[in-house]
Amino acid sequence: MDGVIKQRLAALRREMEKVGIDYYMIPTSDFHNSEYVDDHFKAREYFSGFTGSNGTLLVGKEWAGLWTDGRYFIQAEKELEGSGITLYRMQEEGVPEIPDFLCETMKEGQTLGFDGRTLSCTEGRKLEKKLEKTPKGDGDADRRIVMKFDADLTGRVWEGRPGLPGHPVTVLPEEVSGRSTADKLKEVREKIAEAGAEYLLLSKLDDLMWLLNIRGNDVECNPVALSYGFITPQEMYFFIQQSEVTAGFEAYASENRIILKPYEEIMEFLEQFDYASGEGTGKVLVDEGSISYALYKTLTGRTGHVAGENPTERLKAVKNETELARMEEVYRKDSAALIRFIYWLKQNVGKQEITEVSAAEYLDSLRRNIDGFLELSFPTISAYKENAAMMHYEAVEGSCKTLAPEGLYLVDSGGQYMGGTTDVTRTVVLGDITDEMKMHFTLTAVGMLQLTDAKFLHGCTGRNLDILARQPLWNIGIDYKCGTGHGIGYILNVHEGPQNIRWRFSDGMKEAVLEAGMVISNEPGVYREGSHGIRTENILVVRNGEKNGDGQFLYFDTLTYVPIDRDAIDLKYMQPADVGRLNRYHAAVYEKTSEYLNEEERKWLAEVTAPL
Amino acid sequence: MDGVIKQRLAALRREMEKVGIDYYMIPTSDFHNSEYVDDHFKAREYFSGFTGSNGTLLVGKEWAGLWTDGRYFIQAEKELEGSGITLYRMQEEGVPEIPDFLCETMKEGQTLGFDGRTLSCTEGRKLEKKLEKTPKGDGDADRRIVMKFDADLTGRVWEGRPGLPGHPVTVLPEEVSGRSTADKLKEVREKIAEAGAEYLLLSKLDDLMWLLNIRGNDVECNPVALSYGFITPQEMYFFIQQSEVTAGFEAYASENRIILKPYEEIMEFLEQFDYASGEGTGKVLVDEGSISYALYKTLTGRTGHVAGENPTERLKAVKNETELARMEEVYRKDSAALIRFIYWLKQNVGKQEITEVSAAEYLDSLRRNIDGFLELSFPTISAYKENAAMMHYEAVEGSCKTLAPEGLYLVDSGGQYMGGTTDVTRTVVLGDITDEMKMHFTLTAVGMLQLTDAKFLHGCTGRNLDILARQPLWNIGIDYKCGTGHGIGYILNVHEGPQNIRWRFSDGMKEAVLEAGMVISNEPGVYREGSHGIRTENILVVRNGEKNGDGQFLYFDTLTYVPIDRDAIDLKYMQPADVGRLNRYHAAVYEKTSEYLNEEERKWLAEVTAPL
Repeated sequence: MDGVIKQRLAALRREMEKVGIDYYMIPTSDFHNSEYVDDHFKAREYFSGFTGSNGTLLVGKEWAGLWTDGRYFIQAEKELEGSGITLYRMQEEGVPEIPDFLCETMKEGQTLGFDGRTLSCTEGRKLEKKLEKTPKGDGDADRRIVMKFDADLTGRVWEGRPGLPGHPVTVLPEEVSGRSTADKLKEVREKIAEAGAEYLLLSKLDDLMWLLNIRGNDVECNPVALSYGFITPQEMYFFIQQSEVTAGFEAYASENRIILKPYEEIMEFLEQFDYASGEGTGKVLVDEGSISYALYKTLTGRTGHVAGENPTERLKAVKNETELARMEEVYRKDSAALIRFIYWLKQNVGKQEITEVSAAEYLDSLRRNIDGFLELSFPTISAYKENAAMMHYEAVEGSCKTLAPEGLYLVDSGGQYMGGTTDVTRTVVLGDITDEMKMHFTLTAVGMLQLTDAKFLHGCTGRNLDILARQPLWNIGIDYKCGTGHGIGYILNVHEGPQNIRWRFSDGMKEAVLEAGMVISNEPGVYREGSHGIRTENILVVRNGEKNGDGQFLYFDTLTYVPIDRDAIDLKYMQPADVGRLNRYHAAVYEKTSEYLNEEERKWLAEVTAPL
Repeated sequence: MDGVIKQRLAALRREMEKVGIDYYMIPTSDFHNSEYVDDHFKAREYFSGFTGSNGTLLVGKEWAGLWTDGRYFIQAEKELEGSGITLYRMQEEGVPEIPDFLCETMKEGQTLGFDGRTLSCTEGRKLEKKLEKTPKGDGDADRRIVMKFDADLTGRVWEGRPGLPGHPVTVLPEEVSGRSTADKLKEVREKIAEAGAEYLLLSKLDDLMWLLNIRGNDVECNPVALSYGFITPQEMYFFIQQSEVTAGFEAYASENRIILKPYEEIMEFLEQFDYASGEGTGKVLVDEGSISYALYKTLTGRTGHVAGENPTERLKAVKNETELARMEEVYRKDSAALIRFIYWLKQNVGKQEITEVSAAEYLDSLRRNIDGFLELSFPTISAYKENAAMMHYEAVEGSCKTLAPEGLYLVDSGGQYMGGTTDVTRTVVLGDITDEMKMHFTLTAVGMLQLTDAKFLHGCTGRNLDILARQPLWNIGIDYKCGTGHGIGYILNVHEGPQNIRWRFSDGMKEAVLEAGMVISNEPGVYREGSHGIRTENILVVRNGEKNGDGQFLYFDTLTYVPIDRDAIDLKYMQPADVGRLNRYHAAVYEKTSEYLNEEERKWLAEVTAPL
């Protein structure tokens, strides 16, 4: 492989020389800042050999460096061996961030090139701020480095590059979407005007799918189509590859006064559009957190903009009654599949060879059998013993663990169905476990159930509620280094905003008031390096409760119904109220899922959900 | 009185005409936005007859209006009768705020006058923004109203106006302050530089007292001296009335390179100071939330400024070990006084005439007997039955209630001592109470103790923790319409920032990470109009706890040790953990306070603090 990488870098450097680029940067992203990227966008992997999900390659004339995070240090070291590429371990002491590295290294008048479509506006502007005016010693305050953001050199050098994914889209009928595009567009246009803008440039794929009531298949695990939208007071321009447009979608688009344009024409369109032609402010509403640097630069050079949130994000987050009803049903079936899996695992561990990978494959196959299954909502995390202490562990065939009848096994998984997107984590006892594990498991469950049971006033955000899940663990001096919850899409991305449940404060952070209809995860956990990992995750729906003189109260309904392993429960860490919560939850698990199970499974479920 | 008010307003209008002012505004504030104001500053009362603690008088040529809040509608109606002044009930529907009212009413080129020293910078700028560019219909976007902020007309008209308060200051020895002024000044100067400024203009009286290790007596309940400070990299200018300067203070000031200037020369000084004379940026650090509009305008016309928090506020909030040790001792004595009072009340109610006012007077007299007592830290709130449902109830001789052996009585009180500032609330059972009252009382106690028991990671603010106190009440659909906690000064204001415990989110809100050494109140409650009010308030100190790989944990120590009335506790609303917390707290109450009580009181205390 080493020779190949060197050849590829050499070819890239020849292109760099041709167009006068001194440093070329290759981030890991598609044009929409998606969580997963299609093979077409894996240029960083092609030029470095490093296959991890996060990393940036920087190529100079005689040097190249790869930046990645702690999850991938060992893997990257191995994969970069012999390539001549230096590994930069992000956040280790003395390791500069890329903007700082470039400031230190690049000389006045040199040019940094990159494909600005693959860099977020936020990152691009940070880089710009650093590079374009870097004081370097006295009297050198105006040293300028040129940023060339329209340089897609990888395309010219990459032989056999996979084409852009281009799968036909599906139009959701209204009994699935619950709300017409016309109706959604009307509200979005009101919000654009409220923000003081005339137009909206949308590049967030899940927002576009929601607005147009379509789903695509261009990004792994996310049922989205590569596309852009530009909304004016009268029309909407929708940029999508011709290969994705079906007759059905064409008709739906034309009904809704949506003008279809080729995906690749977005930049040209933004360059040529007459922003002053309407009757409004001429300004474009732009969510700087979600568009690419290239879009941002193209747009802001031509007209004024209003920086704000995409109005689609908040509207999409509040699920309508149709969406919620379908999610309820699909979550019951999805929960039943996980129950079936856990029962199978407990019966068969130690009796037949089960690895982390084969266990995940079996669970995935159970999901595939559910009506309306589309794909997984993320790659199943199947982690045994100390592997579960790594939050984003990825089991790999060959190197993964074989399960034995002892210790804890963690499985975090979910599916995309025509009825919704699921996400659930359970930690399962396979045999003997320590008292400490039981304490950790019990307190995690106590926190999860305490948050589920919260009743709170309208106006609360996840920052107010987070401590309800975390408190039992904080009480014993343990924290989990992530949020407690994230928003979840409807037949869309498993992670969506703007709502979340997090506690940590930072200046200028964004947070969202929890509104009835929002769907959010509740997933506290304990991660002990080299020993074990525990996470118990249910998905909740925010509901309106009592409204009185003190305000509108809200509460959570649960969507996920899978038993919490009583073999790891130690009652001495629970108050009577906690036991009551667990028993009520378990009664509901049986009631909601038993109809999807066979006799044997049902019998087992009755046992493991019996009151404690 | 009516004729008098009309005459005073007529005199004011003559002055207005002389200097060309069309509307004159009189807020209720001194020059430092203090919580209480001296008689010298009660111009609004002088010109309107309205004696409430909050209100703004607006006087036109033939009309006058008074704005006040819900607490004072009835009182204001009565006091304004016959004066010709219109009452504006703030926050009632259809009642405009003053800036909106002025926009609607004033004509182009008219002048609004006020004493800009009595208006906060924040309010002044809001007014400015509204008035100086009010679009009024089409094509009238530049209508300008003149704001004359240096117009102290009240002084010219007010006959027999009390002089400025001018009590001599006391220098605190280092065994009381715990830290030298030199040391504090050094750190403040570092923070000024860090903020990118060269100077600091300080107008916050408690911050000035803290920095100079002095205490004054110019504001009721706040041991502060009217003063201003201007800190340069080498010197500090301190503006104070000559009558307040003692020989001791003069010596202390000169030791610390503090140049004393007359209080009334601050404006002149700011006008004439050569900001460019130093070696720094020439910029002045200004806390826009705490200086007056007049100071702000005077300063910003002359040099650049950096808007930021006064560095003194955060430094003052973190109490040093000397301060904390002295507070611990004084809180034990103060708690014992309240215990004595409650015992006396329970013994004597119904046997002798006790009114809300006389009860407060008796409690105040017990405090006066404590070593080092200076004054009350705020006027004692003594509220029986439904009066306690008003959070800021003020009992008045003659109209107040007489206590009887039934229902609930609430007392919120505190003292200023040479060892610290106290604040405590207890709700006391005087006889029969309803089951609902017991439920409210018990859940209030459960919340208060649950928050006290919190263990949390460094980085938390009060927004993360508030729900621990509020949750038991939210669970039954009840909220209290105030924060759960406020910071508390050391021999200073009973309310201080920047820390607090509040839950509600608003864009741009300020919040502060809780740091070891901060002192904060914990005071959930239930307020049922026309029926009863319950509040249980302890004061807490933030302490560093365990530090491990997951971070620095913090916890609270309690300063207040007064029993929580077991006659109102209903065990069915408590989990075993809650009962354990109450019993542990009560054991500590006995241990910390019994030495200050007599035999009879001690016996009673043992009974009411025995484990449940």
